[in-house]
Order: sequence, then structure tokens, then C-alpha cells
Amino acid sequence: MPISPTSLPDHPSALEADHPHLAGKIPHPEPDDLRGNIENFIGMAQVPVGLAGPLLMQGSHARGEFKVPLATTEGALVASYSRGMKAITLSGGAKAEILDEGVQRAPYFKFIDLATTSRFVAWALSEAEAFRHITGQTSQYAEFKQVKPIIEGNSVTLVFEFTTGDAAGQNMVTICTNHICQHILRTCKEEVIAFYIESNASGDKKANFQSFQHVRGRKVGIEVVLPREVVVSVLKSTPEAMERFGRAAAYGSLKSGTLGVQAHCANGLAALFIACGQDAACVAEAAVGIIRLETTPEGNLYASGTFPNLIVGSVGGGTRLGTQRECLEIMDCYGAGKARKLAEITAGVCLAGELSILAALAEGHFVQAHQSLGRRPNA
Amino acid sequence: MPISPTSLPDHPSALEADHPHLAGKIPHPEPDDLRGNIENFIGMAQVPVGLAGPLLMQGSHARGEFKVPLATTEGALVASYSRGMKAITLSGGAKAEILDEGVQRAPYFKFIDLATTSRFVAWALSEAEAFRHITGQTSQYAEFKQVKPIIEGNSVTLVFEFTTGDAAGQNMVTICTNHICQHILRTCKEEVIAFYIESNASGDKKANFQSFQHVRGRKVGIEVVLPREVVVSVLKSTPEAMERFGRAAAYGSLKSGTLGVQAHCANGLAALFIACGQDAACVAEAAVGIIRLETTPEGNLYASGTFPNLIVGSVGGGTRLGTQRECLEIMDCYGAGKARKLAEITAGVCLAGELSILAALAEGHFVQAHQSLGRRPNA
Amino acid sequence: MPISPTSLPDHPSALEADHPHLAGKIPHPEPDDLRGNIENFIGMAQVPVGLAGPLLMQGSHARGEFKVPLATTEGALVASYSRGMKAITLSGGAKAEILDEGVQRAPYFKFIDLATTSRFVAWALSEAEAFRHITGQTSQYAEFKQVKPIIEGNSVTLVFEFTTGDAAGQNMVTICTNHICQHILRTCKEEVIAFYIESNASGDKKANFQSFQHVRGRKVGIEVVLPREVVVSVLKSTPEAMERFGRAAAYGSLKSGTLGVQAHCANGLAALFIACGQDAACVAEAAVGIIRLETTPEGNLYASGTFPNLIVGSVGGGTRLGTQRECLEIMDCYGAGKARKLAEITAGVCLAGELSILAALAEGHFVQAHQSLGRRPNA
Amino acid sequence: MPISPTSLPDHPSALEADHPHLAGKIPHPEPDDLRGNIENFIGMAQVPVGLAGPLLMQGSHARGEFKVPLATTEGALVASYSRGMKAITLSGGAKAEILDEGVQRAPYFKFIDLATTSRFVAWALSEAEAFRHITGQTSQYAEFKQVKPIIEGNSVTLVFEFTTGDAAGQNMVTICTNHICQHILRTCKEEVIAFYIESNASGDKKANFQSFQHVRGRKVGIEVVLPREVVVSVLKSTPEAMERFGRAAAYGSLKSGTLGVQAHCANGLAALFIACGQDAACVAEAAVGIIRLETTPEGNLYASGTFPNLIVGSVGGGTRLGTQRECLEIMDCYGAGKARKLAEITAGVCLAGELSILAALAEGHFVQAHQSLGRRPNA
Repeated sequence: MPISPTSLPDHPSALEADHPHLAGKIPHPEPDDLRGNIENFIGMAQVPVGLAGPLLMQGSHARGEFKVPLATTEGALVASYSRGMKAITLSGGAKAEILDEGVQRAPYFKFIDLATTSRFVAWALSEAEAFRHITGQTSQYAEFKQVKPIIEGNSVTLVFEFTTGDAAGQNMVTICTNHICQHILRTCKEEVIAFYIESNASGDKKANFQSFQHVRGRKVGIEVVLPREVVVSVLKSTPEAMERFGRAAAYGSLKSGTLGVQAHCANGLAALFIACGQDAACVAEAAVGIIRLETTPEGNLYASGTFPNLIVGSVGGGTRLGTQRECLEIMDCYGAGKARKLAEITAGVCLAGELSILAALAEGHFVQAHQSLGRRPNA
Repeated sequence: MPISPTSLPDHPSALEADHPHLAGKIPHPEPDDLRGNIENFIGMAQVPVGLAGPLLMQGSHARGEFKVPLATTEGALVASYSRGMKAITLSGGAKAEILDEGVQRAPYFKFIDLATTSRFVAWALSEAEAFRHITGQTSQYAEFKQVKPIIEGNSVTLVFEFTTGDAAGQNMVTICTNHICQHILRTCKEEVIAFYIESNASGDKKANFQSFQHVRGRKVGIEVVLPREVVVSVLKSTPEAMERFGRAAAYGSLKSGTLGVQAHCANGLAALFIACGQDAACVAEAAVGIIRLETTPEGNLYASGTFPNLIVGSVGGGTRLGTQRECLEIMDCYGAGKARKLAEITAGVCLAGELSILAALAEGHFVQAHQSLGRRPNA
Repeated sequence: MPISPTSLPDHPSALEADHPHLAGKIPHPEPDDLRGNIENFIGMAQVPVGLAGPLLMQGSHARGEFKVPLATTEGALVASYSRGMKAITLSGGAKAEILDEGVQRAPYFKFIDLATTSRFVAWALSEAEAFRHITGQTSQYAEFKQVKPIIEGNSVTLVFEFTTGDAAGQNMVTICTNHICQHILRTCKEEVIAFYIESNASGDKKANFQSFQHVRGRKVGIEVVLPREVVVSVLKSTPEAMERFGRAAAYGSLKSGTLGVQAHCANGLAALFIACGQDAACVAEAAVGIIRLETTPEGNLYASGTFPNLIVGSVGGGTRLGTQRECLEIMDCYGAGKARKLAEITAGVCLAGELSILAALAEGHFVQAHQSLGRRPNA
Repeated sequence: MPISPTSLPDHPSALEADHPHLAGKIPHPEPDDLRGNIENFIGMAQVPVGLAGPLLMQGSHARGEFKVPLATTEGALVASYSRGMKAITLSGGAKAEILDEGVQRAPYFKFIDLATTSRFVAWALSEAEAFRHITGQTSQYAEFKQVKPIIEGNSVTLVFEFTTGDAAGQNMVTICTNHICQHILRTCKEEVIAFYIESNASGDKKANFQSFQHVRGRKVGIEVVLPREVVVSVLKSTPEAMERFGRAAAYGSLKSGTLGVQAHCANGLAALFIACGQDAACVAEAAVGIIRLETTPEGNLYASGTFPNLIVGSVGGGTRLGTQRECLEIMDCYGAGKARKLAEITAGVCLAGELSILAALAEGHFVQAHQSLGRRPNA
């Protein structure tokens, strides 16, 4: 058996007391309670939550051991992620940093000709202070970061970038960008012949190269050095075998035309996002990144993950709802001041999942795990 | 108000009777009930479900009006999708076809040199009948479709493709490919110096160009001709304005390095997948496609969607769970013989969402919708 | 006959006087004359040069009519480009601007861990003034523009960007980056455990998304409004037909996984680069761009080209050689102060070629042109 | 000095006798001689040719030692490629195979709706024998290989693929596809509402993912095992250092959004194509590929190159011209029956160039080579 699931919680009754929504002890909300989250409400979808971990984090914002709630119906997923977390934890934890942050909206402006477009862009770039001011007037959380023009013929996409405090922030940046654009349309000297608040270039809900190379949400770097004995005992592999497979997997990405190199980050992200009231549609954009595995001179395994598009929030969106809030609270990630911590834990989840699956694939245990823990009613 | 949500269900009490799990009337499952779907079970995440539609489908498999359950916490999403569905329905429904189907697993074989690799590939391609036979012995649902080699130096990735009946089928194809590979390793004359069941090139849980250009799950084509008056009255736009924005959006995709052209398919897919027990991680791969909007000579709007990676199932995975089964049953998509129907409805959902958001973006209503229907606790 | 080649030069004897190298009147250079351009010299490859144009440019740097020398062995190429130039010229010329410029070198630094990498990057970004100073000491032409870090795990690629005066500048930026890196290695406080002057991310001699979205060499925007009668009489098409095909071609790019949208810029670029002593290997990176065709409200054709990676020089490289210098002189593009002019003309050549081929494809004349003007010894 | 150029030819006078065109001893051709290759002829561009090699090939078609003519103005290029060839030759030569071949044309058909498109595609796929027959009637060299549909909404791109004998074959496949399409338009039962001979998806003169993953021209696999002492003495590196850099370079490709992994294939391809009458514009598509470097258990260096888009011909195009024919003859690659040999040598050139530059980059010799052999008039 390649995968050792950590044991079930000892005291289910304690669990009920702590997490009454998850335990189904709280009546469903009324439609009015859900205003702003749903329309035409007909009930609550229920997705099983498994507790993975503990995951030891030595991040800049996430420090200590975390149990991580994952909502999924894919058998073996929680066990596999737990295995990776165990390997990380036994290795002293994962070091993580927020390398960059920003959320974009990319309005489109069209003019009569290229020369007008150029003049407009020069003017718009000179208005950065006004944009910053408008942002501050519009939102108490958003901060204007930069604007980058992509001129194409007689049109330009202005990629506006903001930080969004502890919210994922998509709506916030839409509203701020809208106010900025109203200012632009009101004050610019050139005649705008077409304007759209979004040119389909912001990367919202879409994997794209632009966001992959830069940032969307948080760009988190994470790494761990796994002692050889942990690789052997927990991951049932060796540093050399995992490095070898990691290289084949990088070439697999290249051959199939995939952004970055990773195996199944979408699994952990979707499960974490559903449990924690994040936007599950953002799996499309968050599930890109670069995993790297290397044997160290000492014979241990260096593993890093670079995840540039982790768009998560500890406030707003679905975070206030019953089970979602409970899941965030399990990790002490609910509310103001917790978004970076949540982003680092999210990176830790991804790295754990990658370590587990890459080990399983490197050693031929992947199939067995699916056969022993997953249902196969149709195989 | 740009977006007209359809009204709430008339008889909530009837709803409870029909959908007791969604209504929270059924006690939570015991961990044993969830074997094969989750480990370390601690409770059920609850996600609000809104009923969008009706959506009129004139597909090859989905015919008639469908109410579509969407699980989300993003305000305005159900209303926006409902608006698109209303436009489609008032236009006589969307015509849809399954254009291709197949799920891949991509094992990796390495040999001492290129010449050995070439001989191996020639032999493997000659074994198609054996692969077909093994597949039939291994699974009562999977059928071997083809194998395609990607030789690179002294290694080859064999992309095996299967149809998987009514299941999404990722585990099924893993198990079949494993049996095939055991046969290969047992009978091929060349010495295999490295073998992995997956080379990270199958497209599982990842957007990639290979799957985008070919198929993963089902490739569904869908289209509708929206009469001008429907575009005006329901979408609050015109065919010309939508076509114009559609073109700008296509260039936005190109400029940002996105696969295909679409605005936010991930939103509808994530909501449908969570509600219906599909694998939400597959949003990463399913949310690619090509939308095209054109004004017809008669002044109406032709809209098509081509979605090559809709990987859904009406059996297996999370489909048997309480609320998931209820949601599938709302669309009569639960159980054997329903997967293609579900795939066509899924395409309909995506097309509806695209029509609504593209109209909103074309006309500057996008921001208002978010401001009026979405919560903005942090703006 | 869809394509009307402009007539041959009237006075070949005058040509010989003006361009004795092209005319073969000058003995071959001695190996010593070619030091710095070739090793193991065995002779001169001879490629036929046709004179395309005139092309009327209304650029910021290129103004007036230009005859453009194109070296190729592909029949119909010069005629096709001339046809596009005729359409542009009869339309009053193409307006062009240099939108951005910069050439990159992307060294790689590796450290013991992510935290060290982060500290290093913070320090490196603070050294911009030192980098600027070193650049000024190293080259009288290069100017330091910016440095952008791409952190990945315990490594970082620093993308250094410079302007390079009138030279294409690849060697110049290599040498400047090397001096900067020597400074870095000498003065940074962190222990560098691996350093490479190039991480294979600069885009040198390779199409890549990074250069496509940003700049490499010069990013040139160019546009022309073709009166309907010019489209009809010269291009044998209509604005509507060309716009329609342009849209299909944009989707063709998306479907096949191509950067940007263009049909055959590589043809004009290769021919111009060979004639003019540019680096023909740079066709790989220069031949990306975005063409857009739109019918104007007046029924004319708006055509724009955005070419972000035109890496050309009017000094250095092969520009000083006999025929190369003569070809540059035909356009008054030889020597100091002419590189931007050459870049704008290059964009004009690309746009002309696109107009001609897109018209031919839109109208079904493409095949005939190849049959009537191209040799088909093997058809 | 990291790079050891092989010595100049011993007997220049012999060279003149063998290669009078290269030596400038033959008067320029008259315009009539160039019919089918150029219009508006004004003279011959002259590009210095250096002889690289010898390169020992152990291919399926190219066997023995080859001196390779490279036309370039980039100092150090011939020396660098010669260094890589020396390493290959001293290692017993490179083994190569043609893994696939085919050239594509991708016509576009549009119908009233998706259902009609589907019926059309089903019919078209059933016409393969007719397409084969038409191809045989149209060309004595082209053979129909396959047709692959890409349906998108109410349109389809049919990617026709042919083998083209010893010609590069772009015109040949255009003409054959045109005849096939005339047959289609004449005999298909559905009403075609738009038809273009090319939908901008064939990959002609453009790098794209479709061609990269499949084939365009020839897909050549090539490999060599370099004994450690050759790596040390000729490449001035070690297998370990080169493998390490090769991995960093693969990640550099991923980070910058490049197809495949290679450093500067465009350099060798452009130089070989110009010298040998190949289409230099095809550098855009040919310069993609996958290089892989690995230390063997014995401490030697395994190096492979996989080049899927080598579109070359030994007949047609510019091959019959004076210096071009001489250059082909130097490698015994002129005329019928030589195209596969030329393709394998081309792959050998690319691999040699990669080995040399990757060694130089791995060891920090890259800058010195450029400083010692390249002119730097503007540094």
C-alpha cells in the first residue's frame, strides 16, 4: 500500500461541537441569508470533506502545523495529499514566501488611428497618480499597483493591476477599474471610438501565459528539503528516482503544450477552494506552476513549487458561509489579515500533492492507490 | 438592471419533497457510506445551489427544456447564466453534437537508444488488437480507441485513448492502460530501461494544447441563431455590437497567451461540476474552447461554442452522493446512458454564460451586474 | 492574373554602376576582409535579389517612397510583396511608429534556498544605477533599460534589457550583461551556487510568448486605410471579403497554436534580412505579430500590423559587406542613425506581404499566383 | 579559447575548380535564367560561406563524414558549429532516423450550420481514396497521406497531409489540395458558404504547436553518446555540467513560453538554408525541437535532438541555382533521392550547434567566443 492515510479524528463528537455546519447540525440558510452569493436558491450541495495533514509550514505568513480541509469526491485524494504533507512535516516543514501579488482588469480602448492611440497611452501612463487616488476613493482595500499598455494597431489594452487586501478581489478590481475608466473617458483629450471594461486579456478564470509569467492573486514560492529517509519511508521512493521522473514530467509538459510543469495541482486546489469558500472557477487559472525536484549533494531531495496565480481570499466571496467559515477556521484563515497565510498554505497543499503523486508515478504505485482507495463502479 | 434573473421556484415545499438532500432533510452520510469518495471524513461542505434556466436544447442527446443546478457562492452568476439560457430558449434552443470523444493516459517508455525506441514503437502500433482485447477484458465500459506515439530521443510517450461509456473515466483508463502496459512490458522484445504509467502529457487536470486541439472527454459543438429582437430584449445588446466585441475578445486571448477564445466558461463549469458530482479539478482542462459570434445576413446573431475537453460522467465519481444525484436527476442526467446528454447540456451552460457576459461586456453592463447582485463587503 | 509585378528596372546599366557588388562586378572578398563575419571561408553564396516597391511610408523615421531589395529563390514572392506595396502606396502610404525597443539577455542565478534568492533579487533590483553605469562603461551604444526577475524555487532568471543604438545588438547585450554579472558575482553578499549568462529565456533566435507580448529589438506599429477602389483594383478583393478572411485566419492561428496572427511574415523578413546583412536566424523570432483587417464605416479597409520582435540593425553584423551595404543604401538605411527607419520599413514590408497574401487567399487567387510565377519542376 | 575552428581548406585553388560559382568565377545569371525564382531581378546578394565539419553521420540516409557549407555573417557561428561537429565525429558519429514526414495545407469550409458541417466532414473522410487518386493525377511526386478535420462551429478546417518526395513541397501540396478542393466543391452535397484554400492553420512559415507535436517536412530523431573525454577535450565541459545546464535551459523555455527546448537551432538552419537553396523563411517553423542531455551510468553524455519540422528539399526551390547546387553537392545532397539524407544532415547540424553552445553556456565560455571571433564594431 503506497499511501498511508492519516487516521480519522479521534473524537467525532468534539468535531460536531467545533464544526456544527460541517456536521449538519445547523439548519440550512434562508435565501435572504445568501443574498449576494446565489440567485434562485434551491438548496445546498453537499460535498464530503476530509481533513488532510498535518502540514508543517515555515512560511512568512503561515507558520506551524495545519490540518487542511479538502472537499472532494475523488477517492484517494485526501490520503495522497496527506502523505505528501506527512513527508513535508517530517522534513521540518515547507518554507514559503509571497513573491508578488496583484489582480488585473484589462480594459480596451480603440481610437481612430495608431498615432492617437500612442498619444492616449502616453497620457494614460502619466495619470498613474490619479489612478491611485481614484482607487483609494473607491475601495478601502484595493491599492493601485501599475498599469501596463499593450498597443495593437489603433487599439490598446491597459492592464491595470491592484493589490486587494484579504479578498480575492475580482469584483473590487472591476469596480476600481471602472471608476478609473470613467475618469479616463471624461478627461482624456482623444476621441475613444470603442471602450470595453475587459478585453479578455486579464486572465480572469483562464490559464494564460501572461498571468503564468507574472502574477495573478499571489505568486508563492515554496520549498522543502526532504531527507532521504523521509523520501524512502513516507514516499516509498528515492530522491534520484523522483528527480528522474520530475525531468521526464517536465518534458511531458513541453510535449503536450502545457503552461509550466505540475502534475495535478488542480486536485488540491479544487478541494481546498470548495471547502473554504474560494471561487472554484479560479482553479482554471490557479492550477499552473513550476515544480522542480533535485537530489542534493547530500543525497536528499530538494523540492520547490512556484505558483504564480493563487487567487484566494480570507474575506468576501463565499468565506462567510457556514461550512466555508468553519473550514477556514480550522486553519485559522478566516477574516482580515489571513489571506497571505491562506495563500502560503494553498501552496503547501499543492506541493504536498505533487510530492505524493510524483513519487507514486516514479515508483509505479499510482495505479494501486487508485485501485485500493478509489471506487471503481464502472471499471 | 441588465440582468433579469428568472423567478424563484414557486413551491419550495414541493422542492423539499423532490430534493430532500438539497433541502437538508436527510442526515449526513456515515463515513462508511463515503468509502471510495473521501478519507478522513469530517463533514459535508455546503455550497448554495441556484437553479438556472430553463435552457432549451436541440441536441443529439439533450432535447427539451432543462433547469440547471449551479453550485456557487459568486453573486450574479446564476442570474447571468439564466439570462443567457433565456436568450437561447427564446431563440428556439441550441443545436448540439458530440463531435469526438476519448480519454487519454500517456505512459512513458525509455530505451537504450533511438533505434530501439523506433523498433518498439513499430511493434506497439502493430499490437492495437491486443490492446483492444485487453481493454475489453479489463473493463466492461472502456473501449480502446487508438494509440499515438510521440518519440523524443530514446524515449516515447504512447498516448492511449479510450472511450469510457458514461463515466468521466480517468481511473478506468488508468487501469486499462496499466494492464496494456503490463502486457507490453511482458511481451516486447526490447529492453525497457524506464517506464512510467504517465509522462505528464495526458492532459489530466491540466489545460494543454494537445487536448484543446483534439479531445478529452467529449468534444461538443453547439450553436444557436439568436433573432435580433432576442439579442435586443434579453441580452440588451445588438448582433453587431456583440460580434464586434467577440472579435476584440479573440484578439485579447491571443495577446494574453490563452488557449482558444472564451470569457468565463470556468464559472459555469465549476458550478455545474460541484452541484452534479463531477470532478471540479477538471475545470482546469474543461474550461477551454472557442466561441464565435457573427451577425447573419438577416441581422440576427449566430453564436457557436466548440468545447473539446468536456470531461463529465453520469455514473461514477461523486454522482451517487445525495445532493449530487438529485442535481443530476433535475436534468434527468443520472445513471447509465446519460453522459452524452450531460455533455451537451454542459456545452449549453457554457454557451449561455458566454452570451450573457459577452453582451454585458459589449454594452458596459458588466460592472453594474456585479454591483447590484454581488456582495461587495470589501470594496 | 491576380498579381501584377511592377516592371523591371529601366536601366540595368545604371544599376551596375550603382550596385557593382550586386551586379557581380567586384571580385570576391579575401578571407581577411571577412574576419569577424565567417570562419573557414570557401566562397560567397549568391541569392537572387528582386526589387520590390515602391513602398510609400509615412512613419516616424521612414518617410517617402522606398524600393525594397528582397533576396529569395521563391518565385512570386517579390511580385506578391510588390502588389501589397502598390496598394499601400496608392493609399497614401503606411503610418508607422516605434512603440518600444529593447534587447534582452537572461542570466540565471541559483542559491541554496528561496529565502536567499529573494534577498538576492531585492539587492539586485536596488543596483539598477550600478548596472546602468557599467553598461555605459562597457559600450558606447548600449543603454541599460531595466531588469526583471523571474524567481523559480531557489533560482532566478534576471531578464536584463538594453537599447542597442543602431545595431541589432545581441553581442552588445551579451557583453554588457556579462560585465554586470561579473559585478554581481563580485559584490553580492549571497553565495551563488550556479550562474549561467543565459537561461534560455531571452528569446534569442526563438519565437516565444515573452518576447511576443513585450518587445525584442523594435516593436513597430503600422497601419494604412486602403480606399475601397484600391482594394478592388490592386488587391482584386473587397474590404468585406478581406475582413472576413482575416477573422477566419485569426481563428486558424488559435486552432493551430500559433503566437499572434499573421500569414507569412517570415517570407518578407527572410528575403529582406538576407539582402540587407541582417541575421537571418532572427526570422525565427521576428516572424510573429498581429495583423488586423477591418472595414471602415466608409467602406474602406483599415489594416494594421503590430510587430513586436523586429530585431534589425543599420550597423554591425553583416551590414558592411558588399551587396548587403548596397541593399541597405538602396533604402538609405546604411550606417548610424538608420536602424529605426529600417525597422519601420521592415514593418511596411511585412504589412505589404500580408495584404497581398490575405487578398489572394480571400479571393482564391493564391494557387494561380503560385502556378503562374513559381517554378514547379516537381509538381 | 573555448572554440577551436577547424582549419581553412588546404587548396583554395582546388576549391575554385570545384566550386566556381562560390568562388565568383561564373558570371551572374540573366533574369531569364532565374524565371520561377525571382521577379524584378537586380543582382545577386552575396553571403559568405564557411565550411563546417567534418560531421560524421550514422543515419538511415546520411552515412559518412560531411563537410557542411554554412552561409552567415555572424562571426563564431561556423567555428562553434564545427566544434560541435568535431565532438560528434570523435564520438563515432550521430545516429539519426526519419521518424515521420508530411507537408500540410489546411483549407477552410463554412456551412449554414453545425449539422451540415458534420455531414460534410463525414463525407469528406469517406473520400480519402478519391483524394489519393487526385493527388496521383496532379503530381508525380506528392502522395496523399491523410486528412484530419478540425470542426469549429459551422466551419471546418481540413488539414490535408502529403508526402512530397525530394522537394520541400509547399507549392506541390497547395496545387494538390486545390485539385482536391475543386473535386470537393464539385461533388459534395452540402452548400459551401465560404471556402479558402488555407485557413492559416497549416503551419506554413510559422512556428506552431500543431506542427511541433506532429510533423512538417521531416521529423528527424538524432542522438549521440559523447565519451567523457570528448566532452572534456573538445567541448571543455563535463557531462554533469552539461546535463545540469540542459535542465536549467528546459525550464528557461517553459518560463519564457517557447515551443520545445533548444538554444539556437535557427542559427545553423538559416546558414544551411541560405547556402543550400532552401527556403530561409522556413527557419520560422523549422527552428523548434527538443534537445535532451543526460549523463550515462558510465559517465558519458547522451545527447538527443528531436526536430519535427525540418522542411528541406534536394530538388526544386532554389536548389538548381549556381552556388546553391554547389553547396548541396559538397554534401552529395543535390537532386533526386537526397532529401532524407539532407534532412538527417540538417538535424546533425542542429545537434552540433546545440552541443557547442550548451557547453559554452554551461562553462561560461559563451561570452569569450563572441569577443574573440565576432566583430564588435559597436560594442
